[in-house]
Amino acid sequence: MSRANGGPSAGASGPPLAILCGAGAFPLEVAKDLSLAGREPFLVGVVGTTDSAIEAYPHVWVRMGEVGRLFAALRQRAIAEIVIIGAMARPEFADLRLDWGAVKRAAELAQLFRRGDNGLLVGLAAIFEREGIRIVGAHEAAPRLVAPVGPIGARVGSPEDEMDIALGARLLEALSAFDAGQGAVVAAGRVLAIEAAEGTDAMLRRVADLRSQGRLSVAGPAGVLVKAPKRGQDLRLDMPAIGPATIQNVARAQLRGLAVAAGRVLIVERERSAREADAAGLFVTGFSHVSLAQ
Amino acid sequence: MSRANGGPSAGASGPPLAILCGAGAFPLEVAKDLSLAGREPFLVGVVGTTDSAIEAYPHVWVRMGEVGRLFAALRQRAIAEIVIIGAMARPEFADLRLDWGAVKRAAELAQLFRRGDNGLLVGLAAIFEREGIRIVGAHEAAPRLVAPVGPIGARVGSPEDEMDIALGARLLEALSAFDAGQGAVVAAGRVLAIEAAEGTDAMLRRVADLRSQGRLSVAGPAGVLVKAPKRGQDLRLDMPAIGPATIQNVARAQLRGLAVAAGRVLIVERERSAREADAAGLFVTGFSHVSLAQ
Repeated sequence: MSRANGGPSAGASGPPLAILCGAGAFPLEVAKDLSLAGREPFLVGVVGTTDSAIEAYPHVWVRMGEVGRLFAALRQRAIAEIVIIGAMARPEFADLRLDWGAVKRAAELAQLFRRGDNGLLVGLAAIFEREGIRIVGAHEAAPRLVAPVGPIGARVGSPEDEMDIALGARLLEALSAFDAGQGAVVAAGRVLAIEAAEGTDAMLRRVADLRSQGRLSVAGPAGVLVKAPKRGQDLRLDMPAIGPATIQNVARAQLRGLAVAAGRVLIVERERSAREADAAGLFVTGFSHVSLAQ
Repeated sequence: MSRANGGPSAGASGPPLAILCGAGAFPLEVAKDLSLAGREPFLVGVVGTTDSAIEAYPHVWVRMGEVGRLFAALRQRAIAEIVIIGAMARPEFADLRLDWGAVKRAAELAQLFRRGDNGLLVGLAAIFEREGIRIVGAHEAAPRLVAPVGPIGARVGSPEDEMDIALGARLLEALSAFDAGQGAVVAAGRVLAIEAAEGTDAMLRRVADLRSQGRLSVAGPAGVLVKAPKRGQDLRLDMPAIGPATIQNVARAQLRGLAVAAGRVLIVERERSAREADAAGLFVTGFSHVSLAQ
């Protein structure tokens, strides 16, 4: 069943790998990185969600719920690994377009949709694995896209910023026990905002609003966005990511910079992110667990 | 220096007590409760903040920063205790109208304004105490305004609601270590929102928005607002409160009810709050620390 990799490749070639593409440009970055590493990517686009630019690569389009079509396309190409990447709105079960492959699994799927986001993802992963399709994290398939320890871009945080980063990281760690908290904004030892269901961008807009309403009693750039996955979060299914949009929102919230958990957060369009952070006078840095142990 | 209490009183009379009145109707409720308990209240209104209805009681108006005028008014009436109650916007130091009493303390005041909200309050309390004015909590002066254990209003939470309340209470407890978290919204074991600098009302508006955008994948009323003071928070200076406005915001967010830490959260206009909660189909309840120990 195995098949030689015929794609344009550099370096050692590996077996083909599928990418289930959510919204945005990041799935294409992963595809590019895989190509460079010699693994032919096969892109699965979700109608209404995925950027049509995926058509530059071997690809298939599926609708939400066309599980049978997806598995058939993978089997046909002898693909045994898939990366799931990019934002995907959680569909309502009733809105799914169930094909025969989905109908066979309908009871199981319906049950999944009664779970929280994380339960849904874990359940979907189990369905994939039972079909012999292993889910691979973007951080495993394309490790160059993961935040390293230390500065990304020209600026570095001050010792005060480092203290805010450490406080934010400890806060997120404490929230992990409640399956909450992928992000927080901390300024001079004060917790300004904590992310829950609204997401990072909405949290940053909130801080921007509080600033513009004069409700934070601070002048000039202040505060740090700290981002990390929840403890126990399956990074193959749901890995936090930052990118140029994050940088813009951090700038609008008049923060001093952002810090992400090294090795556990993806950076979308790293060069552009670094450039825009430099232009906005922001630092971007990866922090390690070790550096937080005091 | 002591003076007989000549006000209209019921029950045992006590020495006069001042109320430094923030915005809203709550200072008047405290005044009414004190009158009923036989303690003549003397109301201190802050120009631009306090409701003019305080003029129904013995009162004085001061501007933010008129510390000397405030202390003189209290001394004149031999008042040695003050309750600070109601919302007060944190002023900028530069906006204060400093009188001679404030100028004498200007260095100290300026330093306070470099602290966080809590530091500012603690510092102001120290200035009062040095003048011989003891700060008394509303919960001490008017304990009938504090949330009791158990339901307030006709409805009670389900066993599932009780689990959400317990989860929210443990979350707030964990956040206390970070001097954050007076409120959270929890639905079916999932943390939907966590309050930081934005305040409870803004957090509830956020949940209402997420609901109306269909981003929470729930139908019908879901979730509980849980409110408690931070551990170590000085309740004399900054005690959480709920009231009819909270009930309305909880209803708009399509929650099932709200739960507050008994003995540590004030209820503004309790009868009206209970009536509006009943009408909206919401439960309101006070939870105790003991009932959370599992």
